[in-house]
Amino acid sequence: MANGSEGNGHAVRAEPLPAPLDASKLTITLADTLKPIPAAEDLVFGKHMSDHMMVSTYHPVTGWSAPEIKPYGPFVLDPVSSCFQYSTNLFEGMKAYINPEGKPQLFRPDMNMARMRRSRDRVALPAFDTDELLKLIQKLVAVEQRWIPNAPGHSLYVRPTIIGTRPSLGVAPSDHAILYVVCCPTGPFFRVSRMLSLMAVAEHVRSWPGGTGGYKLAGNYAPTFMPQAEAAKKGYDQVLWCIGDKITEAGAMNFFVSIRRDDGDIDVYTPPNDGLILPGVTRDSIMRLMSAHGTSTTLAGIAEKLHVAEREIHIADIARWAAEGRLLEVFTVGTAVVVASVGRIGVEGKPDLELPKHDGQMGPLARAVHTKLTNIQWGHEQFEGWSVVCE
Amino acid sequence: MANGSEGNGHAVRAEPLPAPLDASKLTITLADTLKPIPAAEDLVFGKHMSDHMMVSTYHPVTGWSAPEIKPYGPFVLDPVSSCFQYSTNLFEGMKAYINPEGKPQLFRPDMNMARMRRSRDRVALPAFDTDELLKLIQKLVAVEQRWIPNAPGHSLYVRPTIIGTRPSLGVAPSDHAILYVVCCPTGPFFRVSRMLSLMAVAEHVRSWPGGTGGYKLAGNYAPTFMPQAEAAKKGYDQVLWCIGDKITEAGAMNFFVSIRRDDGDIDVYTPPNDGLILPGVTRDSIMRLMSAHGTSTTLAGIAEKLHVAEREIHIADIARWAAEGRLLEVFTVGTAVVVASVGRIGVEGKPDLELPKHDGQMGPLARAVHTKLTNIQWGHEQFEGWSVVCE
Repeated sequence: MANGSEGNGHAVRAEPLPAPLDASKLTITLADTLKPIPAAEDLVFGKHMSDHMMVSTYHPVTGWSAPEIKPYGPFVLDPVSSCFQYSTNLFEGMKAYINPEGKPQLFRPDMNMARMRRSRDRVALPAFDTDELLKLIQKLVAVEQRWIPNAPGHSLYVRPTIIGTRPSLGVAPSDHAILYVVCCPTGPFFRVSRMLSLMAVAEHVRSWPGGTGGYKLAGNYAPTFMPQAEAAKKGYDQVLWCIGDKITEAGAMNFFVSIRRDDGDIDVYTPPNDGLILPGVTRDSIMRLMSAHGTSTTLAGIAEKLHVAEREIHIADIARWAAEGRLLEVFTVGTAVVVASVGRIGVEGKPDLELPKHDGQMGPLARAVHTKLTNIQWGHEQFEGWSVVCE
Repeated sequence: MANGSEGNGHAVRAEPLPAPLDASKLTITLADTLKPIPAAEDLVFGKHMSDHMMVSTYHPVTGWSAPEIKPYGPFVLDPVSSCFQYSTNLFEGMKAYINPEGKPQLFRPDMNMARMRRSRDRVALPAFDTDELLKLIQKLVAVEQRWIPNAPGHSLYVRPTIIGTRPSLGVAPSDHAILYVVCCPTGPFFRVSRMLSLMAVAEHVRSWPGGTGGYKLAGNYAPTFMPQAEAAKKGYDQVLWCIGDKITEAGAMNFFVSIRRDDGDIDVYTPPNDGLILPGVTRDSIMRLMSAHGTSTTLAGIAEKLHVAEREIHIADIARWAAEGRLLEVFTVGTAVVVASVGRIGVEGKPDLELPKHDGQMGPLARAVHTKLTNIQWGHEQFEGWSVVCE
């Protein structure tokens, strides 16, 4: 960039401080030795990290450091850093795929960047231009292309993260930070296609009006482990998070239900984006695809018109729809799982709520949106510019 | 410990694995060079860490490592560690004082240990015997005795912390951890005695039924920074956390109000320990001291009988008591501040609620409990074995 104040022969540029995040300053240092890539069938989510990571650090005086792609390795941090003491930490979850032209591509990364901005502002971490971060993510994915499994149901999971690193116990916003991106190859969430069982939990509450359940903060996750372990002990796959009788999320997934209407069409409901749910990228994408069904796209095997709406869903609603014979499908969606059908909901002190079984596999609507969405993610179909190639 | 299975001359002891936390295995490595201790008047909370820290790490196979007191220094951690990604982090806040015999002592450390157990179980971190941790804390405080400021209102702040260090993105409990204790000298929370102003906030909610507001989790803190900054911008010292009109906490402090009764006695109310507040050690201590006033102890200058009760307190209650001329004092309590009087509460869209001013200083009851409590903390008075000496 030209700088009019340079006129005395010195190479020092009078850039404004603190410096903004600037992808054009990226330096790349490749690992001397590359790791062996695990066989697709051996993949365990989050365990096999790729060779490199992207890192930029923030200092309150100098701002964001020149971003680096460098060998994956540890951070060295003061024991009183904000990230340990006050959880000034947040992340995003994205996936990269190899498209039919052999190029890596991301799915709707603008949605993740927008959510990351909201999360970051909510916990008062240093600001940065997420367009610059996205360029850095694209570059990292291109560098790590050999890690993207080219097998059905597989992808490279990409985890942008910010942690606050202010080295002080003072209860205050973190004015130091590390912004980083790491990657790991991932296979299907479930090895065998089957229906999930959910245990409704209202004793422990994930989110609340005015709380942080609508932000992708690290702090939202630790409190879910103990209830999840209790659900597993009782024989359920995941927790169905409720406020009283009202359903918010299932595990770390958004919740959908489909109902037969009197006119033969299908109503599809999902809880509203009112701060009680994480506004999922998969949730938004599936709502849009179902709304577009019959006009700008077609969901295979679904002859009915779909009416998609956000509305409160109570356990009692599901029981009533089931009793009336109108309940078609219950399914959950998320970046990791994509789409999973639910076969059973456990409610404390009551017999399990048995849902339509569809031979123990995915119901037709869940299957249709799963196929459509993964076709778009893999670049076999285009839809509204959702795919972004990493050059 | 004798071990009957040792009979073949080998020195290997067949200890059970994973190993429990064991203070008897402590090793101490002192720093070669000790830091200069800042002058008492230069202290900023949480900035000047002492020379040493206590560390034990947990591995799922081997258990807790032999604890170490060693020079204060950084941790080296994988970027996908649970502490960064899922906030499997919690802490405690304690203070150590020099008693009249010149020995360091802690104040009710059993209360901190009990709360730490509850927090740890809530986020599914590895278990350990907190009696062993307390022995290690006592030892660390004894090692760091020169860091305890011997000046009124000063003390050594002690921060036991656990962070989950499982090196995987899998959304699961952390089966690796670091348990550590760090210390810093601290002065009075406010340099000049004055009354706090609070801004009632209901748009952002710190805690909710079934949430984690009753546990001392790192994840409870980051979401408070943005509302706190907004309150400061509007000219208030701290946020008064509300659920609707119901008061829960003020900043990171518990809330008290005192009211003149028709019979001349004083009612003292504080919000109940129902999961919406952090069950503070200072809160509990002050409730006990006020309840004991006139029987097993005496609060200086307070002639009235005190009736202490937990009850819901609404902003409207405070406005009504003030209008009736019955409101005596509003004050907040916590480990850092001990006791602070409140002079003003801001409520969105209304004129500030002006509280009894007591010449802009502490009210008589706040002053009396502050004096009584700090006398006990400093060892000038004994009460129910609350002081624990660090040998």
